[in-house]
This record gives sequence, C-alpha cells and structure tokens, in this order.
Amino acid sequence: MRRWLLPEAIEDILPVEAARIEALRRRMLDGFHGHGYELVTPPLLEYVESLLTDGAHDLDLRTFKLVDQLSGRTLGIRADITPQVARIDAHLLNRAGVTRLCYCANVLHTRSDSLTATREPLQIGAELYGHGGIEADIEVIRLLADTLALADLSATRIDLGHVGIFRALARRADLDDDQVQVLFDALQAKDVPTLEALTEAIAEPVRSALRGLPECYGGSEVLDKVLALTAGDAEVAAAVTDLRQLVEALAGLPISFDLADLRGYHYHSGVMFAAYCAHHPNAIALGGRYDSMGKAFGRARPATGFSMDLREVVRLSENDSVPGRILAPWGDDPTLQQEIARLRAAGEAVAVALPGHDGSWREAGCDRRLVQRDAKWTLEALN
Amino acid sequence: MRRWLLPEAIEDILPVEAARIEALRRRMLDGFHGHGYELVTPPLLEYVESLLTDGAHDLDLRTFKLVDQLSGRTLGIRADITPQVARIDAHLLNRAGVTRLCYCANVLHTRSDSLTATREPLQIGAELYGHGGIEADIEVIRLLADTLALADLSATRIDLGHVGIFRALARRADLDDDQVQVLFDALQAKDVPTLEALTEAIAEPVRSALRGLPECYGGSEVLDKVLALTAGDAEVAAAVTDLRQLVEALAGLPISFDLADLRGYHYHSGVMFAAYCAHHPNAIALGGRYDSMGKAFGRARPATGFSMDLREVVRLSENDSVPGRILAPWGDDPTLQQEIARLRAAGEAVAVALPGHDGSWREAGCDRRLVQRDAKWTLEALN
Repeated sequence: MRRWLLPEAIEDILPVEAARIEALRRRMLDGFHGHGYELVTPPLLEYVESLLTDGAHDLDLRTFKLVDQLSGRTLGIRADITPQVARIDAHLLNRAGVTRLCYCANVLHTRSDSLTATREPLQIGAELYGHGGIEADIEVIRLLADTLALADLSATRIDLGHVGIFRALARRADLDDDQVQVLFDALQAKDVPTLEALTEAIAEPVRSALRGLPECYGGSEVLDKVLALTAGDAEVAAAVTDLRQLVEALAGLPISFDLADLRGYHYHSGVMFAAYCAHHPNAIALGGRYDSMGKAFGRARPATGFSMDLREVVRLSENDSVPGRILAPWGDDPTLQQEIARLRAAGEAVAVALPGHDGSWREAGCDRRLVQRDAKWTLEALN
Repeated sequence: MRRWLLPEAIEDILPVEAARIEALRRRMLDGFHGHGYELVTPPLLEYVESLLTDGAHDLDLRTFKLVDQLSGRTLGIRADITPQVARIDAHLLNRAGVTRLCYCANVLHTRSDSLTATREPLQIGAELYGHGGIEADIEVIRLLADTLALADLSATRIDLGHVGIFRALARRADLDDDQVQVLFDALQAKDVPTLEALTEAIAEPVRSALRGLPECYGGSEVLDKVLALTAGDAEVAAAVTDLRQLVEALAGLPISFDLADLRGYHYHSGVMFAAYCAHHPNAIALGGRYDSMGKAFGRARPATGFSMDLREVVRLSENDSVPGRILAPWGDDPTLQQEIARLRAAGEAVAVALPGHDGSWREAGCDRRLVQRDAKWTLEALN
C-alpha cells in the first residue's frame, strides 16, 4: 500500500504555491475589507438540506454526504459557500439594510468540474445583500474587476447575461418544471440539435427566440437582436434595460454579452456575469443575482455577488518569485539574537542552523547566511 | 424544517470573530515565516489509510469517512493535520536535511473533544523535521511560547513529559500491545484504581514505578522522583537527561512536568509538552516528538512540533475591538472616488451608501461618514 498516494483531483499545496496563495488571499481579503465587506466563515459541514436550496440538482450530485453520529442525520460537506453566506445574511445577521459579506475557504466536490479542475477549490468571493437596484450589480462587477487586478490578472472579457430572459421565454412556452430543466441544460451546453428538438412544439415567436439565444453573444448589438427575437416581451425588455444600464455604468471594463450562458447552480434570478482571462478557456470567476435564495432560510433578500477558485487564479497569475531564507547560527549570543529579531521584524525568514546539517541548507531554501565579521553580524551569500 | 439549524458543535464564524481570527492567523503565520517555517496546505480529504498511521485508534474514531465515487475507495476527512505534514516531509519534499513546515487549516471531528469543543477546529501548527537533537525540542517549545504571546496570551505553564519513560516501563513489564494500550489509557485518564488493578501482576520495581507515574507532576523534583521510582533504568535516565537539558535551555519559560500525560494520538516518541493558559482548564496547545510517523510514508525522520485550535486561542485572547466602517455617498465624482481610494489604501473599510437605505448603516457597522464640506471631503460621526 502506497500511503502517500492522493485521491484523483486532490493535491497537496507545497511551499512555493502555498506562499503565493497566502499572499493573494490577504490582498483580496484586504480589498474586500476596504470596500466594506465583512469576513464570515461558515462551517465545512451542515445538514444536507441546509446546503441544498430547492432545485439545486447539480449541487446535490457534487456534495459529499456522510452520517452524523450525534444526530443520525445526513450531513453534507459544502460544495459551494454562497448558500451558506445567504443563510448567515437571512437568518443570523438579520439586518434590515445592506449587508456586504466576503469569505475564503475550501469546498469539496465529489467530481471535478473539468478534466483539469481540482475537487477541492479554495473559494473566495464577495456577496452584497439587501439592495435590488442596479447599483449593487455595478458595485460587485467593479469589485470583481478590481479583485482580479490584485492578482495581476486583468479580465480580458466580462460576459453579462440575464436569467430573466430565459425565464420569460420558458413561461411563455408554458413548459412544466422538468421541461424547463431539460431546456435549460440544452442551452447551457449550447446543444443546438437538442434545443431544436425540444422547441419543436413551441409556438412562435417563442420558439425562434429560444432557438436564437445561443447566437446572442458578442457586443451591444446582441441586446437589439434579443429584443427583435422576443418581439417586445415586457420582461425581456426590462432585462435588456438592466443590461444597457450596466454597460453604461461599467464603461472602461471589457463588457460583452452571452445571453444563453445560464450556469451557476440554477439559483440565479437576474443579471449574471462571467469573467475570462487570457490563456484560459473557462471562466475564472462567476457571479450574479440570486434574490430568492434567502427564502429557504426564512427571508428572501435581494442578493448579488461573485466567487472564484483562488488556487486557479494563482496558477494563472504571474509567478512571483518567493524570496530565499537566511541561515543563522545556533547560539545564545545576545548580539546574534538581536540581529535575528531585527531581520525577522523586517519580514525576513531566518532559519537557525541546527548542529550537524552543514551542506543541506540551500535545499531548505536558504540563500544567505548571517556571519560575524569584525564583531558585526552581516549577511553573505550561502553557497 | 428549519434549514438554518446547524449540527451540534458546528458553528458559523460571524464578522467580529472572523476578523479577529484572520488577524491572529496572519500574525502567527508571519511569526512562523520569520522563523523559517514554510507554509503547506495538505488536502481536506485523503484515502483513509493515509490519514491514519498505525495504532491511531482514537484518531480513527474521530475521522469522518466517505466513499470516493471516482475510485470506490474509502476517503477520510482529516481529523489532524500533523500526519499529512509528515507525509509531505517524508515523501514529497524528500529533503536530506532539516525541514521546517507550518500550516493553518480546518479539521473535522466526528465527536467533540469536550463538552465545549467544536467539531471543526482551525488547526494551526509548526513542525520541525530532520533533527533528532534536543535543539529541535528547544526551538519548537520557544516558538510555541512566542506564538501564544502573539495572541496576547502567555502560557501560564508548559508541562513537559517524555513518552520514553512509560515505554521503558511497559517494556520491562513484558506486556503485549493490548495490555500496553489499556495501561496507557488508564494513565492518560489518571485512573488510579484501574492502574492498580492492571499492574497487580507486574514485578517490582516496575509495578511501583507505573503506579507512581500519576504523582510525577510539578517542578524539577519530579525528575529525581521518577529516577528513584525506576531504580536507575537506563532509558528512563536518558529521558530525564533530555528533560533536564530542556529546562536549562528554556530558562525564562514557566516549565513544569507531568510525566503521566501521554495524550496525543499515540504517535509520540520522546519529549512531549502541553501549554496551559489562565482561565482555561484544558491545554491550549499540544506538541512533542513523533520520530516514527514518517515511516508509514516511506521514510522515518526525526520530527517534533506543536499545534493548537486558533478559534479557541482567539476566544481566550483579549477582545480587540473591531474598528467601524466609513459610509461614503454613491456617485462618480472624481474627488469623491479619490478620497475613497485614499481611505481604503490607508486600511479603512469604506462602504458605499446604495440609494434608499438611510438609517440602516449603523447596523452595517458604519460609525463615520464621508461628507463634502466647503468643497472638501471630510469624515463625520454617523448617528
């Protein structure tokens, strides 16, 4: 038995990567703090019905389940943190006004999202509760762009969508919940043949509108296109008005549209967005409105936010070099101890040489050493 | 169904506590970094046989198990991080010399350690591999004292023990593994009647020595006492020599002894220690030698270190007040945006007032607001 083997899509984070993740984690949490977002840390483990809001079928499949010895009930290891933060807003903080929350913690998935994805993402995100107006959408999308910039990663594209467009069309098509689900999946997969088969029996103009959605991506012209396709549907028109306001307010950001992109655990309710970076085919961050989630926890609240996998962001960001450590001799000489304390206070990593390990310190990451020359402690290169 | 109920001994960490934990987490990890300890983050989830080193029966019972859909094998959610870090040292880093590692991450327990303990501790710790000499024990105990000081928490007492004393006596008593286990449990529980019954058949002087161990706590006189009890046993004498060297090197720290305190997942192999603080009956941090653990991962290495639950430390440390946030008006005025950016860069949390929520901002933690007076932006108290 090779005890050091890890399960598929599960990895250790070793020193160089861990230092980069820690540094970026601090920068991002400090950025959230600066914008008034308060840190919360929900538990890894909850009763499974608290983790899974209604209709969250894909989240259910991705959630590890286990039995609580204390209660005999089924527990889940969280596969997403947003529903937990919505619970905290709705039930625990229970504030009447605007509440801004952020978090950074691990989630576990029973299966990877993609061939290269980990089953243990480090989810970092920010959520804004209590404001239904477009100002909240503007704030969180700007905050997302600022947050990616902290990783020296500019969003090459932020795609906007609006789940209200699909919902309006599905309602007009008079489909039952199962049919909506299948149609939703076909659109999410941009599976045009299935989409055509599913919409065969739907009356015009809704049929053409649904079939046309996968083509509704690109610049602002997409908004005119969807208005034409849906022939003046009032709900679609309202969604388009939201999206036009957003584009105007977000001038300077690389905004485009993808109106058939409906992903995100089926909990979204309005404007949705996805950020893409160079050299990476998948979205690096996802977000949007989920105004109805709080209802499961006793209080529906306007809500919008975003999240990303910090480990993936670190992998895509520029490779900062990690500075080397300083090797100091073992000993109680007060001048040596003072010098070590001074270097540590200045942010240096000073490792003490334990006796008998000469020649092995470069392997431990030391590139300089503290030596006494003419009664003074100075740094020299370590060979 | 009340979806917001959490399982027993599982809690959310809300903003004030989360901010205090985050601040102390950074101070402690910076302290470890300054001492040359490299951060690693092992996964939450491993094959269960990797998480459980031989004989770790209590750890086994505390580990949540689940089935991996991808491999069909049993996975465990870690209940301790030290064995994972030993795996990283032994197998992944595979360095010949001294390796210093640290970590801060959640573990899960199927049951609480005590009536008040959480089932989701935030384990923070430091481990030193590759050096069998007493210098390593000295370094980690000093580091533990420095780390507690970062929480404004001084150790009121650091109890030293040495598992070699018990092992030497058990060997001389010629007990089989099961008997050693039962005896070990009785000693750990300081259960004197059981201890007397179990040692009934053991020949002197080992019988009296085992029976006397629970009384071996206090100052340095304890070391003379155990030497007398064990009538010059060479292994016991070697352990006592280690302990005497430690006391001398750790002058200035509040060192005492508890030679029957053998707790810690049965993996210890030499000097062990436990730190206690005022107003808290249980040890706040535990540590010690575990030289044989790496063997399970292909390479036995000298090892010592300590860990503690950061959430518990924060609860015991002084209650820092969390500074209030600043409320800024919503708007694109460049002078306003500049002032907000300046305040954020200075470390302030500036929340923007979204329209329509007047009167609710104190609830969101704002105690000052940014207002324009005579064409200048200034801060005023928020009522």
